Amino acid sequence: MTASTSLKVRLPALVLVLEVVMLVLYALFVTYDDNANAKLQNNQTNPMENSLYRDYPYFADVQVMIFVGFGCLLAFFRFYGFSGMVFNFLTATFAIQWAILVQGFFQFYYDGKIHLGVINLLNAEFACAVVLISFGAVIGKTSPVQLLVMALFEIPFFSVTEWAVLKYIRINDAGGSILIHLFACYFGLGVTFILYRPRLNAGHAKETTSYQSDILSVMGTLFLWVFWPSFNSALTLKGDDQHRAILHTFIGLSSSTLTAFALSAVFNKRGKLTMADIQNVTLAGGVTVGASVDMMISPVAAYALGIMGCTACFFGYRYLTPFLAQRLRIQDQCGIHNLHGLTGLISSTAGICAILMATEDTYGPSMYQIFSHRAPPVGDPKLLELQKLIPGLKPGLGRTAQEQALYQVAAIFSTIAASIAGGMITGLIMKLSFMASPSDEDCFDDELFFDTPCDFDSTDVFKTSENCDEHVKMSSVNSKV
Amino acid sequence: MTASTSLKVRLPALVLVLEVVMLVLYALFVTYDDNANAKLQNNQTNPMENSLYRDYPYFADVQVMIFVGFGCLLAFFRFYGFSGMVFNFLTATFAIQWAILVQGFFQFYYDGKIHLGVINLLNAEFACAVVLISFGAVIGKTSPVQLLVMALFEIPFFSVTEWAVLKYIRINDAGGSILIHLFACYFGLGVTFILYRPRLNAGHAKETTSYQSDILSVMGTLFLWVFWPSFNSALTLKGDDQHRAILHTFIGLSSSTLTAFALSAVFNKRGKLTMADIQNVTLAGGVTVGASVDMMISPVAAYALGIMGCTACFFGYRYLTPFLAQRLRIQDQCGIHNLHGLTGLISSTAGICAILMATEDTYGPSMYQIFSHRAPPVGDPKLLELQKLIPGLKPGLGRTAQEQALYQVAAIFSTIAASIAGGMITGLIMKLSFMASPSDEDCFDDELFFDTPCDFDSTDVFKTSENCDEHVKMSSVNSKV
Amino acid sequence: MTASTSLKVRLPALVLVLEVVMLVLYALFVTYDDNANAKLQNNQTNPMENSLYRDYPYFADVQVMIFVGFGCLLAFFRFYGFSGMVFNFLTATFAIQWAILVQGFFQFYYDGKIHLGVINLLNAEFACAVVLISFGAVIGKTSPVQLLVMALFEIPFFSVTEWAVLKYIRINDAGGSILIHLFACYFGLGVTFILYRPRLNAGHAKETTSYQSDILSVMGTLFLWVFWPSFNSALTLKGDDQHRAILHTFIGLSSSTLTAFALSAVFNKRGKLTMADIQNVTLAGGVTVGASVDMMISPVAAYALGIMGCTACFFGYRYLTPFLAQRLRIQDQCGIHNLHGLTGLISSTAGICAILMATEDTYGPSMYQIFSHRAPPVGDPKLLELQKLIPGLKPGLGRTAQEQALYQVAAIFSTIAASIAGGMITGLIMKLSFMASPSDEDCFDDELFFDTPCDFDSTDVFKTSENCDEHVKMSSVNSKV
Repeated sequence: MTASTSLKVRLPALVLVLEVVMLVLYALFVTYDDNANAKLQNNQTNPMENSLYRDYPYFADVQVMIFVGFGCLLAFFRFYGFSGMVFNFLTATFAIQWAILVQGFFQFYYDGKIHLGVINLLNAEFACAVVLISFGAVIGKTSPVQLLVMALFEIPFFSVTEWAVLKYIRINDAGGSILIHLFACYFGLGVTFILYRPRLNAGHAKETTSYQSDILSVMGTLFLWVFWPSFNSALTLKGDDQHRAILHTFIGLSSSTLTAFALSAVFNKRGKLTMADIQNVTLAGGVTVGASVDMMISPVAAYALGIMGCTACFFGYRYLTPFLAQRLRIQDQCGIHNLHGLTGLISSTAGICAILMATEDTYGPSMYQIFSHRAPPVGDPKLLELQKLIPGLKPGLGRTAQEQALYQVAAIFSTIAASIAGGMITGLIMKLSFMASPSDEDCFDDELFFDTPCDFDSTDVFKTSENCDEHVKMSSVNSKV
Repeated sequence: MTASTSLKVRLPALVLVLEVVMLVLYALFVTYDDNANAKLQNNQTNPMENSLYRDYPYFADVQVMIFVGFGCLLAFFRFYGFSGMVFNFLTATFAIQWAILVQGFFQFYYDGKIHLGVINLLNAEFACAVVLISFGAVIGKTSPVQLLVMALFEIPFFSVTEWAVLKYIRINDAGGSILIHLFACYFGLGVTFILYRPRLNAGHAKETTSYQSDILSVMGTLFLWVFWPSFNSALTLKGDDQHRAILHTFIGLSSSTLTAFALSAVFNKRGKLTMADIQNVTLAGGVTVGASVDMMISPVAAYALGIMGCTACFFGYRYLTPFLAQRLRIQDQCGIHNLHGLTGLISSTAGICAILMATEDTYGPSMYQIFSHRAPPVGDPKLLELQKLIPGLKPGLGRTAQEQALYQVAAIFSTIAASIAGGMITGLIMKLSFMASPSDEDCFDDELFFDTPCDFDSTDVFKTSENCDEHVKMSSVNSKV
Repeated sequence: MTASTSLKVRLPALVLVLEVVMLVLYALFVTYDDNANAKLQNNQTNPMENSLYRDYPYFADVQVMIFVGFGCLLAFFRFYGFSGMVFNFLTATFAIQWAILVQGFFQFYYDGKIHLGVINLLNAEFACAVVLISFGAVIGKTSPVQLLVMALFEIPFFSVTEWAVLKYIRINDAGGSILIHLFACYFGLGVTFILYRPRLNAGHAKETTSYQSDILSVMGTLFLWVFWPSFNSALTLKGDDQHRAILHTFIGLSSSTLTAFALSAVFNKRGKLTMADIQNVTLAGGVTVGASVDMMISPVAAYALGIMGCTACFFGYRYLTPFLAQRLRIQDQCGIHNLHGLTGLISSTAGICAILMATEDTYGPSMYQIFSHRAPPVGDPKLLELQKLIPGLKPGLGRTAQEQALYQVAAIFSTIAASIAGGMITGLIMKLSFMASPSDEDCFDDELFFDTPCDFDSTDVFKTSENCDEHVKMSSVNSKV
């Protein structure tokens, strides 16, 4: 690992190739969505009913989460704030423009073209969120070149999995617990398994936070917290479904946050609060309500899910992350397995329960909109009856609740399998010698890839740590003995 | 006050009890609002007309204010940034979920259930804002246990007062000057009166800011400033009323900000600007336009109100806060009496004037929508006439302008009385010995309740303050001799 | 330049005069827009169709950009964070309230009154953005008094130019490349030309960044980045036009960001990334797509424009800014000529190409909405035909594409000429001796205009710079040899 880490040639060369490819593909394949096409507007179209006004508010909220929320959250290391925030910016930007193409090819392709509207951008941002979650597993130990390569491969792996699951297995997953959180988590773990650095298993001197970086990171958490209801509801059906999605997400986050404070205090030796818990564990409820976010699970169920997800996430950080690192050589830097994996599994299970318990008594005829695969198939007389009550109801597959539940299970396992495989393949490519991977010593240090200002001195860590209580040093990092 | 301040048992025990109570109450009493209930959707309901789309944008804006705006603003102390931001997060989260229940019981309860929609969340956030304003009076001197207890009691006191005033006195208070700002202010003063710490009247060494904390706090101010129009207009009538509310709030904030800069410079010994003024006094205009925010007061009146509120607020900080602390043993840490009390009183007075001056000449028939208690009562022939012009106009109480003005006065006095009483009772409970209240020495110090990173050293204050001009040290804190 | 810089009298006196003038003018001339006027609401008006709901979301987004985005971005200097953020706050606040009047007089004045609605605020924010861009040229070297004076004069210069160009030349400029970016840039250069400080051409010891200020500034960039689509689309036609504007802006920013990273690495001596590039050059794409942002240019063209604008901007920082400072005595502190001038010129040229290439084949009949001056004039039979297809199409001037292109060229030159002249006149006024202009030594130092906290010490620069690699010191500032 004494290979050069200069970005002088590598990064520009990679970007140049990517941009040329992108220009060619955009030129050949990308045109406007009907709602963005001037030619299709006429005296029948009402400008104010343009799909823009349904999608853009959610797109803008998710933008803030992706760029500001994640950016600040990932700037939590003392000497790695530039990298955390800026690599997030770079990776997200590339991931979205690449997902517009790849995901667009699977979801918005017809008449030989990808049709581009704000709805594609919104979908692409979800694909981008997948990459950024995976990034959490390897933050501090990867170069920007490696991150671009990760995005380059993860987006297609994700898009194919998403397409296959939605087209062939057909599931309910409004908040993306399965397709986003589980995929992102296990992909990231696959990558970090391959990039294993044995010498870092005992921790790294620079793997620490500062007063300012901790505050910045909490700000990131707050932005994610505030806009998470938009994230979880962006792709639900409009109307009451989206309304419930927002309520459940808010309630789940609330109970999760309260629980996180309690657990943080009770398991701290001196009965104090730990910032890493505030930064991460508080958010667990947002993931946990995901799979059933648009269903009639009742507000109290959202409250309970928040508590359960938070608890699992908290103990994951405490016991599972060290275990994974030591025994399974999976170094999960930000603990994505706790915040996205465990919570994703709970969420998926809750989703299955909600599917099994759904009845027309609770949902009325709109049950067949939410659980669209349970709607009667074409030709079934019940379909016509229902269409009188719910105009525009689409024919489904006539699945029973039990059948749908089995398909959900199948989706969970296929997604996990696909993501682990994809992550490991991607990890092998990221490990190639010309990827500017930092040496173990240079991990968690902005100096390596940035011109830093005069007041930056990462050797400071050796001076200040003398005054520093050992317990604190340890509590601020996650993946260690 | 040598009682233990460990949170190890207290905080988790309190949270556990609260969460169990909440789970039971949510299970028993909380169901979905009609707009979030799948069963009530049918071929008569248009998903895009769901109340969600009217309420959610304002809810999201207020979320940013509550969590990011307040969070950053309250992180203004040099050694208390974690606590300011994180206790705000904890208190707000709990206050909202608790208000959903308590306020829901008074405002959204029918058929034996609280009906939950985004509109409840929005209302609950206003209740939460009340708690956070009161928090400003005691910041730095309270444990998270005390803050949760404060929220636990303030929410019911507030909800009852709000319900009684709206149901029995019936007032106009679109921006919440009376019910939110006055209540929050006098409640907070009541609490801090009980929690009086005589030894802190001469100031505290750690009651100081740092360069970074001052900048962070201004960021909080900016977020509050930017979204304040949404706050003041969130609960007005839709259409022109909400439109005016946004205009007036913006103009009031603008003139208030300009005035704050001028006053800050002119009363500074060396003709410089003081950050505490920028952080607080600039916002005074947003409160001052509150009570008349949806009325036809004319843009110039909003401009003038901004200047008046700002001036009162500024001189309050300068003369009234020290007076309250020394003579009345009311230590108002953030000066909430200036930013919410004085401005709230001016605003309420302006509201009364606007009510007295309102005529059909200015408002047209929609006067009876804005001043709904002046609408003719059921059976009055004028009601039918008006309903032809304004379909859906609800019958009122047939009050005259003078009568309405008197009711406003009654509401002001009742609210202040209720809030002082509620605050003092709550203060007595917060003073109980097992509340982990910090000792005088440990006030304004994150060390007490947080694991802090290695670069944090609150004893720094004794080293750096030598280089420090006395005037500066004094100007950055509010409640001192 | 040994004149006093105390704000004690100057700032309050100026503010007092401005506020009195404003109060008088608001009282005499400002009334409510029809959509905010209670009297004009009746059984024909639907509250939910109030213009508020079309304009406010964009207004709120632009508010975040102006106050938080610009505020953080301009806080990039190590010892000038208070000033960057707070003077931005002051200048923006005043600029908007002043533009409501001045711009309102030119655009929203009828029946003897300026009619005020959220649409005026939105327009006023664009005028404000003009002032803030110009501020970038002189940041660090100006007093708040000078900045207020700059806003006081720039707003009328801008409003007259905008009015004249829109009324007499009549152009397409949805994203404001000509009227906003070019005007702001050349006005700012005119001011800084007059305020030339020869002794600062070799750099200034305090003209440096810190670790925290660089992070804060990137946060500002991220907020601008995230909401730029709202900025570029806020004033387009509703429907597909606004939809395209959002798509193009997002794509342009994306490709621009990716390019900026590549260029930053390749031209850095040690193959590292430079924060100043991330903070500024990434945004170039947002300006470059501006003039053609609502046209059917195709997504790939937006992608290409992002790359071109970014490249021009990057090399501008590297070669043009030092040249301007040394040879033309134009000290462009933030490099606004690169981010707004060069990109604005490219954008205008692209706009002209898009105009020349526009055909009914691509646009359908709605071509005459987008290029409204090409619509047939009153009386032309083609107008009636088109009005059947597009109800409400307004008669135009019957210009050909070539004619429109020539008018665009005329607008570019007139705008540049007007802005340079206006900037130089304003600069001369700002140079008057009682404007509290800082001495060369006191530039880039918060100490001059602020009470600073104890941990602030701008003489630090002489201590830390010893450890500091010369290259780094130089790369973080723009305008030097």
